[in-house]
Amino acid sequence: MAQKVKLSTIADALGVSTATVSLALRDSPLVAEVTRERIKEAARDFGYIYNRRAASLRTSKSGIVGVCVHDIMNPFFGEILMAVEEELDRQRQTFILCNHHDDLSKQRSFVDTLLQLGADGLILSPALGTPAADIRLAEDNELPVTLIARTVEGSGVRGFRGDDSYGMGLAVDHLIERGHREIAMVGGTAMTSTGRDREAGYLAALERAKIAFRPEWRVEGPRNRHSGFDATATVLAIEPRPTAIVCFSDLVALGLMYGLSRAGLRPGIDIAVTGYDDIDEAAIAMPSLSTVSNGQREVGRRAAGALLDRLRGEPAIDETVLIRPELKIRQSSEYAWPS
Amino acid sequence: MAQKVKLSTIADALGVSTATVSLALRDSPLVAEVTRERIKEAARDFGYIYNRRAASLRTSKSGIVGVCVHDIMNPFFGEILMAVEEELDRQRQTFILCNHHDDLSKQRSFVDTLLQLGADGLILSPALGTPAADIRLAEDNELPVTLIARTVEGSGVRGFRGDDSYGMGLAVDHLIERGHREIAMVGGTAMTSTGRDREAGYLAALERAKIAFRPEWRVEGPRNRHSGFDATATVLAIEPRPTAIVCFSDLVALGLMYGLSRAGLRPGIDIAVTGYDDIDEAAIAMPSLSTVSNGQREVGRRAAGALLDRLRGEPAIDETVLIRPELKIRQSSEYAWPS
Repeated sequence: MAQKVKLSTIADALGVSTATVSLALRDSPLVAEVTRERIKEAARDFGYIYNRRAASLRTSKSGIVGVCVHDIMNPFFGEILMAVEEELDRQRQTFILCNHHDDLSKQRSFVDTLLQLGADGLILSPALGTPAADIRLAEDNELPVTLIARTVEGSGVRGFRGDDSYGMGLAVDHLIERGHREIAMVGGTAMTSTGRDREAGYLAALERAKIAFRPEWRVEGPRNRHSGFDATATVLAIEPRPTAIVCFSDLVALGLMYGLSRAGLRPGIDIAVTGYDDIDEAAIAMPSLSTVSNGQREVGRRAAGALLDRLRGEPAIDETVLIRPELKIRQSSEYAWPS
Repeated sequence: MAQKVKLSTIADALGVSTATVSLALRDSPLVAEVTRERIKEAARDFGYIYNRRAASLRTSKSGIVGVCVHDIMNPFFGEILMAVEEELDRQRQTFILCNHHDDLSKQRSFVDTLLQLGADGLILSPALGTPAADIRLAEDNELPVTLIARTVEGSGVRGFRGDDSYGMGLAVDHLIERGHREIAMVGGTAMTSTGRDREAGYLAALERAKIAFRPEWRVEGPRNRHSGFDATATVLAIEPRPTAIVCFSDLVALGLMYGLSRAGLRPGIDIAVTGYDDIDEAAIAMPSLSTVSNGQREVGRRAAGALLDRLRGEPAIDETVLIRPELKIRQSSEYAWPS
């Protein structure tokens, strides 16, 4: 049986990109006549078998998908992007990225760029305050959108995200089981749906345990490592000092653990800390970080899959899919309140 | 004196992107006639003053710059990208990103996308094994390229990077001054120009101090946090155990410090460790990380500046510019070898 010849085999042999090979095999005018003939000849020589199903994915399409998130450097998005990339690679889609930093005009410029390219779709974690009309504009111009991480009310466009309220509840329940009753929450704000949902999960878990919430326990802030570090002083000034702290994200928790160590406290020994996201670093951190795995890889994989389904002519998903999170218990929450 | 009206003011008022406003004011056919008129009217109402110099930057151009690096999530690139973005924002250029993961075909697809867009330029940290012809192809198709971090021999295209050999020499000299004679180097490989240069700096510093290099001191590996963590066992198995370790990057050093802590050693107290890059986390890590600031922000700023200069018609820079690194001494190298 002959081995399957890949586009990349032909591309590498001729020193052109796989996109060029793909375009040439579809007789695209974007590739010069002479190059097209050279590629088709090489394809015949290699015994390349044209994959009709894969090709039908892209009829009169660019083969390009855009991904736009607030901060590509955050490992939370990193893991989603890795999963998205794996899915798109399988379909030989090129993907281009944009950091919008919650700046609406950047997000809009990127959407314009995708429209100009005739891109096949957009996977978007929407900037704060994205109006539904912006999402509709893309959809109405045949740029299918799949949302991740955040929602846009009234846009009619759905997507995939972790069940943040349930997930934060898992972390708080775990600490309560270990005897803690004074539990602060650091990081995140009510400005994002993720922030609101995780806070709701925290508050609901306190309520289930009949613990009266105290406003000073909620220390809001950005989701990065530095903000966790900077929150240390605020947390340690709360009287009486909380015995456990749930954090909005692993980065916040890792920064806070640096801060607590500097203040002479040993996370996991003198005070309990949990994160959220289960990024790669959580398992090797010192102490290792108890956290909630919110299925970023599944969010990425399914968001890309849903977009590819639409390119095949299948309908858009009609409701937001919540991915169920899982608690990962490690050293940072070993400290139990003496009962 | 009237306040200067910005493109974004008009864009926000009409709910369109700044790119659309900019195109409309230049009578671009890419914007529908009716929208163009609406934008021009709003511009008049706001008293917008057309900036001829800024506009000349983009005549018949897309206003889009591509940036392509091996790993956007690495904070080393993150800091370069932030500086690039600041420069491009000032000129209202949209920028789109690509992760090539050292995969030549991904890099090629991205270059194809930029050519298709008629993009204004490319800032590239070239994938391993990038042939000079790939760079020439872009340049010959009027896509100006500025290289960062790595070089491509024979491409005739120059760029900006840190003086890695000199910088690693600073770290090793510092450890030698503290009395260390058994100094290992962890991370990086001879497959990249950065890896070769940093290793050369390490070896040259040992030689200057008349320390005979021992091959087991050189522990090669990827530049991420996990690889530093994984290298711990190898480093601790060296007989006699090195008293100091220079790392290829801060991420490698931070991972190694987690590993050393797990093995019961206190970095900065029982063993000296240095990083390279001076990422944001280095200063807050526990212990704080001694490292080499390699001027990533300057690399990013100047690479973007050089590209913008070319768009204004100025010639390309004709030699690689080496940015001079600086040593940052913190807690992780406090441990001195008893003399």
